[in-house]
Amino acid sequence: MTGSAKAAFIGLGVMGYPMAGHLAARGYDMTVYNRTAEKTKRWAGDHKGATAATPAKAAAGADFIFTCVGNDDDLRSVVLGETGALAGMKPGAVLIDHTTTSAMVARELYEDAKSRGLAFLDAPVSGGQAGAENGQLTVMAGGDEEVFARARPAMEAYGKAVTLMGPSGAGQLTKMVNQICIAGLVQGLSEGMNFAQHAGLDGDLVLDVISKGAAQSWQMENRGRTMLKGEFDFGFAVDWMRKDLGICLEEAENNGARLPVTALVDQFYKHVQARGGSRYDTSSLMMLLSQE
Amino acid sequence: MTGSAKAAFIGLGVMGYPMAGHLAARGYDMTVYNRTAEKTKRWAGDHKGATAATPAKAAAGADFIFTCVGNDDDLRSVVLGETGALAGMKPGAVLIDHTTTSAMVARELYEDAKSRGLAFLDAPVSGGQAGAENGQLTVMAGGDEEVFARARPAMEAYGKAVTLMGPSGAGQLTKMVNQICIAGLVQGLSEGMNFAQHAGLDGDLVLDVISKGAAQSWQMENRGRTMLKGEFDFGFAVDWMRKDLGICLEEAENNGARLPVTALVDQFYKHVQARGGSRYDTSSLMMLLSQE
Repeated sequence: MTGSAKAAFIGLGVMGYPMAGHLAARGYDMTVYNRTAEKTKRWAGDHKGATAATPAKAAAGADFIFTCVGNDDDLRSVVLGETGALAGMKPGAVLIDHTTTSAMVARELYEDAKSRGLAFLDAPVSGGQAGAENGQLTVMAGGDEEVFARARPAMEAYGKAVTLMGPSGAGQLTKMVNQICIAGLVQGLSEGMNFAQHAGLDGDLVLDVISKGAAQSWQMENRGRTMLKGEFDFGFAVDWMRKDLGICLEEAENNGARLPVTALVDQFYKHVQARGGSRYDTSSLMMLLSQE
Repeated sequence: MTGSAKAAFIGLGVMGYPMAGHLAARGYDMTVYNRTAEKTKRWAGDHKGATAATPAKAAAGADFIFTCVGNDDDLRSVVLGETGALAGMKPGAVLIDHTTTSAMVARELYEDAKSRGLAFLDAPVSGGQAGAENGQLTVMAGGDEEVFARARPAMEAYGKAVTLMGPSGAGQLTKMVNQICIAGLVQGLSEGMNFAQHAGLDGDLVLDVISKGAAQSWQMENRGRTMLKGEFDFGFAVDWMRKDLGICLEEAENNGARLPVTALVDQFYKHVQARGGSRYDTSSLMMLLSQE
């Protein structure tokens, strides 16, 4: 890593806050920006770094500019326009976006950056808040090889696995595959756990036994027991999962992939939201089966 | 293990054949029966053991009688009636059924056996043909504790994990939970892998990356790559999966559990059958997404 490299981090949410912290700990000369100024101040108090009043000012002079915000629109608002990051970036600087977005906005910003002599990588992550805090994220990147090679050491400040998946958009598309796999998987697990309860089985014993075979999954090992207890107030929020599944379903309209169960599970999550579970973990699909 | 114990094995299919072989290798004094006599002869040629003309004759004098046949009706046909196993069993003998059946037939045979001074355990397995061959099956048993304790050492001839799940029927119910979890999981994985292909991603690279996180599963690790290649001519057959899911859906009618995606996936498997995939592995759900 380059001790003297300058970096900007835009978006200090539950993910971005600790990620920016890891960069500071590695010696990057940090400037941070957040929509609500309080968090910017708090971060600058916790870590060594400067604050900026706009994304453009944060980006000025930085070698790497990181963004980690909510969705496509949030990303456009911190990247484009007079106060957006691209407007402030110096020639050759790289914008690395860790937001989960559509592949479309990723490609759009890649082209925009390129036309200005700048570079852009889409780089969504998985591993959740815990992964961000302990620097164990999986980073799935899309973009140019040379740019990726330059940016990789910085991303390794918080990523245990940082991989270039292909050209611009490929990082986002990989994240979509991840979320599609999870949707069907968690619904299957929910139906299994709910069936176990209706059948009068000892659910914990069932998990002990079946998690050694062909039904095994990370979700079974990490969410099975909380599902049996009806504990959902933690983890990856349903609101975020619905945002991600919306992106998947939209992309599938473009590429022709069929997502029958993913679409159905997205509707189930809508029910969870309607029942007050917007902030519940994705495993809360179980709620719909056990409630009247 | 008791070197002098007598055992009978009824049903020498792809599972029963090697399971009976493991019992012989452990020193059980074996008598075998199979509906088609050729297999009985072949087994007796491969292993040390006697053959019998009916299940009742095979069961005569045995301490443990094992059955591993196709479905509820097959099981009744080898257990009940004048030539059925129960008719030949000596007082105190235990019938251990390794077939995947309904919980109803398990309880019915448990009561029948009890009324005759005999014992019955439902003990479906998971681990497939490979697990049967290398003695690494998971055995999920239902029945009386004392009976289970007596029968357990025999089942350990081919079971790496042999667990009493609860009273009669609990073994079958646990196996149902396993299959329910797999149904939704494999459909999610299929949609993910198919999406990856439509998105133009390097599927193997995607698997490398996402199999380290929250989307990870045994199915992803063991079936993801063959799914990407469209290889389905191996593994656990769709016909058997449909039989198992039918049992799950019927049981859910009784216990009130909701199985929306399991029921849908069962219909998808029906499509796979209609397209000639009856003997294909359960991962062949992928076929339906990639075909026109």
